Amino acid sequence: MAFGWIDEQAEARRRAGLVRTLRPRPADSPLLDLASNDYLGLARHSEVTEGAARAARRWGGGATGSRLVTGSTELHAELERELADFCGFEAALVFSSGYAANLAAVTALAPHGSLVVSDAGNHASLIDGCRLARGTTQVVGHADPDAVRKALGTHTGPAVVVSDTVFSVDGDAAPLAELAAVCREFGAGMVVDDAHGLGVLGEGGQGSAYAAGLAGAPDVVVTVTLSKSLGSQGGAVLGPAPVIEHLVNAARTFIFDTGLAPAAAGAALAALTLLRREPERAARARAVARELHTRLTAEGLAAVRPDAAVVSVRAPSPEGAVRWAADCRAAGVGVGCFRPPSVPDGVSRLRLTARADLAEEQITRAVQVIGENRP
Amino acid sequence: MAFGWIDEQAEARRRAGLVRTLRPRPADSPLLDLASNDYLGLARHSEVTEGAARAARRWGGGATGSRLVTGSTELHAELERELADFCGFEAALVFSSGYAANLAAVTALAPHGSLVVSDAGNHASLIDGCRLARGTTQVVGHADPDAVRKALGTHTGPAVVVSDTVFSVDGDAAPLAELAAVCREFGAGMVVDDAHGLGVLGEGGQGSAYAAGLAGAPDVVVTVTLSKSLGSQGGAVLGPAPVIEHLVNAARTFIFDTGLAPAAAGAALAALTLLRREPERAARARAVARELHTRLTAEGLAAVRPDAAVVSVRAPSPEGAVRWAADCRAAGVGVGCFRPPSVPDGVSRLRLTARADLAEEQITRAVQVIGENRP
Repeated sequence: MAFGWIDEQAEARRRAGLVRTLRPRPADSPLLDLASNDYLGLARHSEVTEGAARAARRWGGGATGSRLVTGSTELHAELERELADFCGFEAALVFSSGYAANLAAVTALAPHGSLVVSDAGNHASLIDGCRLARGTTQVVGHADPDAVRKALGTHTGPAVVVSDTVFSVDGDAAPLAELAAVCREFGAGMVVDDAHGLGVLGEGGQGSAYAAGLAGAPDVVVTVTLSKSLGSQGGAVLGPAPVIEHLVNAARTFIFDTGLAPAAAGAALAALTLLRREPERAARARAVARELHTRLTAEGLAAVRPDAAVVSVRAPSPEGAVRWAADCRAAGVGVGCFRPPSVPDGVSRLRLTARADLAEEQITRAVQVIGENRP
Repeated sequence: MAFGWIDEQAEARRRAGLVRTLRPRPADSPLLDLASNDYLGLARHSEVTEGAARAARRWGGGATGSRLVTGSTELHAELERELADFCGFEAALVFSSGYAANLAAVTALAPHGSLVVSDAGNHASLIDGCRLARGTTQVVGHADPDAVRKALGTHTGPAVVVSDTVFSVDGDAAPLAELAAVCREFGAGMVVDDAHGLGVLGEGGQGSAYAAGLAGAPDVVVTVTLSKSLGSQGGAVLGPAPVIEHLVNAARTFIFDTGLAPAAAGAALAALTLLRREPERAARARAVARELHTRLTAEGLAAVRPDAAVVSVRAPSPEGAVRWAADCRAAGVGVGCFRPPSVPDGVSRLRLTARADLAEEQITRAVQVIGENRP
C-alpha cells in the first residue's frame, strides 16, 4: 500500500502517548479560556465581528486571486497603512497567514550567498523560512547575542538575524536591543516575528520593536500576525518601503497565494481601531500575566516569569502534562498543553495565556483549578 | 546598509521591465473581470457573503489558536465533512490557505528516504513542499507519465507523485488516469493539487479526481483551495482517514498555524451548499472557457485549448504582454498577465478565466477588446 508506512508511525505515536486529536469546540463553550492567543479578548468583540461581516458584504467572501492580479483591494491597502502607522513602520504587506509572512520575509531577505543567524527557539514558520531560503543558516543558542556576534563574525556579505520577539512556548522575550546592537556592528539586518508582542508590548500594544526603540529603523523588519491580539486571521511584514517592494516582487508566498479574505482584513482593521481607542488593553494583558505568574508560583508551581502575555508552567512528563490539561478542562478551565515534538527542549508544559478581559475572579478560579489538579 | 543589496535587484528589475506593482481595486470595479479565479462567480454571491458574515458573528473574527489548541470549531468539522463528502473522499483537513495545505501534504507524505516525483509545471506551493520535504525530489517533464514511470523505477521505498490537476498558467490538465496507473505499478502514492479543478471539473464540480474515477482511492490524496471556485479563503487536504490523521500529527503548517477564520469557513460552506443545489455552474464555466477559446482562435490569437476554466493566450514578449493587458484594462476588460519569473517556460501570456456567470454579450465584448488590443 502506497501509504502503508503511515500506520507504523501512527502505532509508534500511540505507544509513546503522543497522539494528537482534534477537539472541535462549540460556539458557546462554557470553558474559561486560558489556552487561546486571543490576548486582548477581541476575537468575539462585536466591533471586530461586525468589521468582518461588513467587509464580507462589501468586498466578497474571498479576495478572488493573487494580490498581484485581482486580490488587492482598497481594504488591503487601508489595513497595510494602518498596521504600518500603528507599529511605527514605513510600509506593510499583508499575507493570508503569519506563517506565510514569515516564509516570505526570511526567504526574500536571505538570498544566495547570505547568512541567516537563527535562534534555536524560533517558531516553526521561521525555521521553514530558513530551510527554504537560498542563504546558509546558522542556528545559535537561545537568546544569546554573543553567539549571534560570533556567527556574524564568520561571514562576509549580506546577513540577517532571525528571531521571535516573544517565544511562544515559554513566553520569554528576545534581547532585542542587544541583538540590534550586534547586527549594527556587522551591518546585518534583523527579521523579528512579533506574533506574541503586537497588542501586548509597547505602551499601547504597538509591539516589541516599538518598545525596544527599533520601530521604523532601516535595518529592522518585523512580522506580525492578525490572528492573535487582533482576533482575526492573517499576517503582515512591516519595514522600510524598499524592503516591502522587494517582497512584492520576490516573495513566493505573496506572489503565488490568494490575497487575505476581506472579512479577515475587516476584522483586523476594526481591532486596530479599538486598540487605538483603548490602549490600556495592552497593559492589562501584561498585568494579568504577571498576576498569574505570581499566584501560580505562590502555589509552588514552576511557572516562568512572563515577558508578555504567555505564562508557561513546567510539567513532569508528556503524559503528566496531558492529564493535567485534561483535568483542568474537566474542571472548566481550558489551558494549552505543549509537549514533544512541539517543544524545542523536550520539556512538556502547560501554556496559559493572559487575556486582557479576564476578571479577578476568573484568575482566582484558574489558579485554583491548575493548582488542585497538578500531577 | 543591511538591506542595500535590495536596491541593486530593484534596479535590475526596472531595467528588465519586470517590476510588479500592487493595484488595489475598489469594491465596485467597473472592469469586466476575466482575471480572477472566481470561476463560479460565487465570491460576491449574497449566500456566500452572508455565510461569512453569519459565521463571524457566531464564531468570532478569528479561530484564536492552532487547530490543536483552541482553533478547531464545530464549524471547521462541518466544513471538513462537507468537503470530503462533496469530493468523494473519506476525510478532509482544512488549512488557512491552499499554499499551507500543499506544504503540509507534500512534507508529511514524503519522509526521509522517500522519493517525490514532481511535474516540472507544478505550482510554487508544491515546489516549496518538495524543498521542505525530507524525501528526495526528482523533477520530471510536464505531464509525462513515461518520465514518472522511469523515475519511480529507480527507487525502492515510499514514493509519491506530485502534480497539479489543472495547471494554472496554461489551463491544461494532468493525465491523471495514466499517472494513477503508473503509481499503482510501483505502489506509489499520488498527491494532486485540484485548486483549479474543484467546482469546474466533474459533472457537478466535484473535481478532477472524481472526474478521473480516483475519488476515495486509498492511494490518492487531493489538495484543494477554498479561494477559487468556492469564493472564500483557505485550503484543504482530502484523502483516506489515516492520511488525514497523520497530517494532524505531522504537518507543521497545520500544527503551528492558526486555524482558518470562521468567516472563511462559513463562506466556503455556503458555496458548497450552493454548488450542490446548482451543479450546472460547473458545466457553464467549462462551456464559457471553450467558447472563449474558439472565438479567440477565430480571431487569429494563439489561445491554448482549455481543459478547465483557464484560457491562456500567448504574447510575443513580457513588455508586449504587459501593454496588452494594460490596453484591455483601459478598454474595461480585466485580464491576467503572466510573465517571467512566474511562468516556468519563460513565455509571457494573457491568462483569462471563464466565469460561469459571464453572459454572452460579456464574452463577445471580452473577445473583441482582446483582439483589438493585440500587440
